Amino acid sequence: MSAKNVVWHHHHVTKENRSSLKKQLPCILWFTGLSGAGKSTIAGAVEHKLFELGHHTYLLDGDNVRHGLNGDLGFSDEDRVENIRRIGEMAKLFADAGIIVLSAFISPFRADRRMVRDFVEENEFIEVYMDTPLSECEQRDPKGLYRKARAGQIKNFTGIDSEYEVPIAAEIIIKTAENSVEQCADQIIKYLKDNDLIFSKGNV
Amino acid sequence: MSAKNVVWHHHHVTKENRSSLKKQLPCILWFTGLSGAGKSTIAGAVEHKLFELGHHTYLLDGDNVRHGLNGDLGFSDEDRVENIRRIGEMAKLFADAGIIVLSAFISPFRADRRMVRDFVEENEFIEVYMDTPLSECEQRDPKGLYRKARAGQIKNFTGIDSEYEVPIAAEIIIKTAENSVEQCADQIIKYLKDNDLIFSKGNV
Repeated sequence: MSAKNVVWHHHHVTKENRSSLKKQLPCILWFTGLSGAGKSTIAGAVEHKLFELGHHTYLLDGDNVRHGLNGDLGFSDEDRVENIRRIGEMAKLFADAGIIVLSAFISPFRADRRMVRDFVEENEFIEVYMDTPLSECEQRDPKGLYRKARAGQIKNFTGIDSEYEVPIAAEIIIKTAENSVEQCADQIIKYLKDNDLIFSKGNV
Repeated sequence: MSAKNVVWHHHHVTKENRSSLKKQLPCILWFTGLSGAGKSTIAGAVEHKLFELGHHTYLLDGDNVRHGLNGDLGFSDEDRVENIRRIGEMAKLFADAGIIVLSAFISPFRADRRMVRDFVEENEFIEVYMDTPLSECEQRDPKGLYRKARAGQIKNFTGIDSEYEVPIAAEIIIKTAENSVEQCADQIIKYLKDNDLIFSKGNV
């Protein structure tokens, strides 16, 4: 039979196929909160625990996004919205690939977080609000940014001279000033288990 | 112990960790060729075979990228370059997540393909040249685009009035006019096996 007579056909591997292979339902854990609230730290700890349970994850944060995909963006209002839009679209594709995505960006505005929530199916977007008091974040000041903002060296800094809109109905609220990293990470793992997003494997 | 005394620490799950979990080395299979050359069809067939072997893949193509992440881009020269840049940056993140990425875009210019190759480590970028003659592509014309281009209804159409720069040293050359879909897909699977990018699992 000549190749010309072969019916050209798309074989689509579906989200359900991938989910079954990976023994998990894909979702986006969207960490939001002030600078210094512990987003990257808790997301990293959760990712580590999920890896040890044999799950497939990917963490999107400033380290791997700001200099790459979003390297052309600055800090204007338009660019800030575009930054979150691209991160959301990318998180959607990772979820489509069957991955549990962890995203760690301040994302201070409700409208932007709502936009990303609307990109995916219901129950796939899990808003994780890092409810750490500003005073605590400012005391930690891991990158010295609050000091610079207070000194007027950084403008439009969230929590100082730019607003952070507290989530109204976050799926998970994390209090890092009252609980240890371990406790915070376990709270999120428990949520994933309770909602049947991760399920045990026979061989783990 | 108060949470304030805990050392805040980043636990990074590495590319090596993920690779070991998934029993594969991540890479980017970058399909390039004319419209109608069979990029999506062969990429889909390869993805299906990889899934059946238990591997973790993701296919980037017009369907999931053009209306989402790159929905803001048009067809100007600048936007065309930005389109490939973003796809390349995203493919890089998927590879970092341990995934075998299949990318199916015409990507007619050497400079753009070189840019993406330079995003990742050596041996992670595998250029798959769909060496299908223009006459064959035009005869297939699955979307009726060649007819429109010949009628002058579409401008800057690759192969008609815009150049396609043939790869000089593609890792894989596929001849869809001479071989069946099955044979073409097997040729790529063989490449992945021969180069130890996929390895057998005890339980498959």
